[in-house]
Amino acid sequence: MKIDLNSDLGESYGAYKVGMDGEILKYVSSVNIACGFHAGDPMVMDKTVEMAIANNVKIGAHPGLPDLMGFGRRIMNVSTEEVKNYMVYQVGALMAFVKKRGGTLNHVKPHGALYNMASKDKKLADAVVEAVKSIDENLILFGLPNSEVEKSALEHNINFKNEVFADRGYTDQGLLVPRSEPGAFVQGAENCAERIATMVNKKEVMSVNNNPVKILADTVCVHGDNLESLEFVKALKVKLENLGLKIEG
Amino acid sequence: MKIDLNSDLGESYGAYKVGMDGEILKYVSSVNIACGFHAGDPMVMDKTVEMAIANNVKIGAHPGLPDLMGFGRRIMNVSTEEVKNYMVYQVGALMAFVKKRGGTLNHVKPHGALYNMASKDKKLADAVVEAVKSIDENLILFGLPNSEVEKSALEHNINFKNEVFADRGYTDQGLLVPRSEPGAFVQGAENCAERIATMVNKKEVMSVNNNPVKILADTVCVHGDNLESLEFVKALKVKLENLGLKIEG
Amino acid sequence: MKIDLNSDLGESYGAYKVGMDGEILKYVSSVNIACGFHAGDPMVMDKTVEMAIANNVKIGAHPGLPDLMGFGRRIMNVSTEEVKNYMVYQVGALMAFVKKRGGTLNHVKPHGALYNMASKDKKLADAVVEAVKSIDENLILFGLPNSEVEKSALEHNINFKNEVFADRGYTDQGLLVPRSEPGAFVQGAENCAERIATMVNKKEVMSVNNNPVKILADTVCVHGDNLESLEFVKALKVKLENLGLKIEG
Amino acid sequence: MKIDLNSDLGESYGAYKVGMDGEILKYVSSVNIACGFHAGDPMVMDKTVEMAIANNVKIGAHPGLPDLMGFGRRIMNVSTEEVKNYMVYQVGALMAFVKKRGGTLNHVKPHGALYNMASKDKKLADAVVEAVKSIDENLILFGLPNSEVEKSALEHNINFKNEVFADRGYTDQGLLVPRSEPGAFVQGAENCAERIATMVNKKEVMSVNNNPVKILADTVCVHGDNLESLEFVKALKVKLENLGLKIEG
Repeated sequence: MKIDLNSDLGESYGAYKVGMDGEILKYVSSVNIACGFHAGDPMVMDKTVEMAIANNVKIGAHPGLPDLMGFGRRIMNVSTEEVKNYMVYQVGALMAFVKKRGGTLNHVKPHGALYNMASKDKKLADAVVEAVKSIDENLILFGLPNSEVEKSALEHNINFKNEVFADRGYTDQGLLVPRSEPGAFVQGAENCAERIATMVNKKEVMSVNNNPVKILADTVCVHGDNLESLEFVKALKVKLENLGLKIEG
Repeated sequence: MKIDLNSDLGESYGAYKVGMDGEILKYVSSVNIACGFHAGDPMVMDKTVEMAIANNVKIGAHPGLPDLMGFGRRIMNVSTEEVKNYMVYQVGALMAFVKKRGGTLNHVKPHGALYNMASKDKKLADAVVEAVKSIDENLILFGLPNSEVEKSALEHNINFKNEVFADRGYTDQGLLVPRSEPGAFVQGAENCAERIATMVNKKEVMSVNNNPVKILADTVCVHGDNLESLEFVKALKVKLENLGLKIEG
Repeated sequence: MKIDLNSDLGESYGAYKVGMDGEILKYVSSVNIACGFHAGDPMVMDKTVEMAIANNVKIGAHPGLPDLMGFGRRIMNVSTEEVKNYMVYQVGALMAFVKKRGGTLNHVKPHGALYNMASKDKKLADAVVEAVKSIDENLILFGLPNSEVEKSALEHNINFKNEVFADRGYTDQGLLVPRSEPGAFVQGAENCAERIATMVNKKEVMSVNNNPVKILADTVCVHGDNLESLEFVKALKVKLENLGLKIEG
Repeated sequence: MKIDLNSDLGESYGAYKVGMDGEILKYVSSVNIACGFHAGDPMVMDKTVEMAIANNVKIGAHPGLPDLMGFGRRIMNVSTEEVKNYMVYQVGALMAFVKKRGGTLNHVKPHGALYNMASKDKKLADAVVEAVKSIDENLILFGLPNSEVEKSALEHNINFKNEVFADRGYTDQGLLVPRSEPGAFVQGAENCAERIATMVNKKEVMSVNNNPVKILADTVCVHGDNLESLEFVKALKVKLENLGLKIEG
């Protein structure tokens, strides 16, 4: 059995340097690179793609809403055509850097508000999926299990990878417990690793109400923003491997 | 003998609508589409690519400096790496729209200050050429005859099209007479058409000092911003055809 | 009796020129000048303030959401603190141009989505009102009659001017008929002038369902985007004056 | 004798947090707050102004070129009118936050490329000075000793504070040794403090060629980007006080 570990990278912008991209790259099997709308700029994109290829990880585009000041986290009332074209623009831009560096674009994972909005809204989900398909029908789309994006990807015959979160609690419906509610977060790398192993092996997770819930886990989102998150990923990787899972994108 | 007529399109942005793109497309053989840095946005780019394909004209990317407020016309002290990556980003973004719409990207023509800066500076010219080559070595680059960009394109084995301006005067060195000086502009479609025909047939142009000057003309830049410029292009096209030139990109 | 005619001006940006600001200024008594977030730039703001002062009209700030690509018309999930600070920033910037040109800032009118969002949401309305109050408690706030903004302005002891729309229909609740519904628009300058005169004189308007509805009208929003709208304003002004109303900000 | 210590603050943007503003504020007597063009956003500006007032330091505006991606460090070919209006816009915006928080704007210090360009170009220097004067003729302008800005400020009767750099070497002409050349930097807080004391007491500095050079020092620029720079400022402050200088804005 295998599992993919993915992380959002290339979120620096101009003089603003964030993330420990060079470090986290050693532990993950896939990266999602910001494309300039919510974070990232052409210099950062080129450098991040170069590092990703050097570390032999799968490369994905991480397009967001055009809201640098809000880091793409604020819901905006964008039309389906706008979503489609914002994605085509950003994914196309990243593809050019990947091509320049001799790599291949593997997947697309929408960022922040775009990811969340599309998860719940079929029309936006269709826009996301159609954008990906229009660029390259072999691209894989990362998204929430049991979301509108998953449904739409299946309908459009686009490869979909179910993304789970190592340190988050799930509801009885298999959705994320909102950050503001009890049980939103799970503590400890060992605990998290065991939950992931269960998701992969049994295709289920214990919900915040202690009920077993069906969930598919193809890729696990991890963060490398600071030393603490980096230590967590290191520990998680070892524990997942000890549980017999191969880390692979 | 043939000549290409090219025009800069897709320069609208959000609610700001400029240009008569739908009209000028009927008379030109190539278009250069703005890519979002100095003008253009994803919605405009998609629409412009769609119209270009419907009109069966050659499609080029028209990347500029990141200066929307200055329409990419202000010189900025950008590094060669920045030039390269700004071009890769923008050309990549446009390529994705062209692919989405089932077309092929034919050429790249830098915009405004970027075009002018690279014309005179070998290092920036190399950056422009290397950017194009890194994306797709079959792309054609449009630029000034006798410029550093032409030299660099030859050195890098990249196809180069010499761009002339229908209504501009030339110095004894084969360069454009600056807009602020006498003789900068040439009047009348008939007059302009004859000058172009001479450039194509005899590979020379009469300079502002009335001397014959060597010049190569592969493509002629025309504008479609208003009714007057549109009328000029219509007349120019007819006159060029009457002089035995085929309009072809 | 008197009525104010107001118009949104200074919506050009860089090379993008929109509106017939120089013309509309002759017919209105107040202008609302864009402040650079959804439209306008420092050059445009300075020029527009200069023209407004030369035409002796009241000057207002017209702050919007940070969404140039969407012209500030798209709802964004901004916090109350963000609304407050976006307004302080933009109103402050405009004030400096007004001071530079020797004028006085008279009022503030939020733009587009910000105007609409605050009309319906008490917390955002409070943010708008508190922002205005924090800058200068003598500033007048323009807003929708019967809106949350009106309520909040009264609570905060801020001068409020009820803004009506010359050519729009009203519901039985005294709110605007949505643009997509029948009765959203009213035709003809004469018709519109009579409706306005009734609002001013009788403090009521006939709703889309032909019921008399209470409404207060202090200022009427008119547009000067094109020749047609300009002709409408000219005619409206004459008719309002014929009906005994003085146009005054 | 007294000396002002100033530091550039409020350079965060959206999710990008930089600087140790809360710490450096304890040691300086003046701060220059970014205004949104090269760094800073309305939320950051408000917070920084609040902290500055709480720490009882003098508040200045720190306007820059409209180049967030380049942090305002890249020379741009802007016109004098553009410089003037970019400054009026940004200083006005910051003034509104200062007013909102009950403080007073004390000074203006242009940032990065704008600071450097105006130092050497009389027309741009005049634009900077005229912008400050048009907003409030009592504002103080910070700039390089012996620069075009100093000359222009004197001509326009604007208060000017000579800014020196604690850790930089000076040429025989009293200008900064370029960062790329030997002698550009001076090591050690003690050494730096003694140089400053000499500037204040004797109005001269030893140049990189070991010649005494006339220089006026009213304010010293220090940085608080990281722990090391913060330690330097702490030490510098103590040593300056030991040398009999009062730190005062």
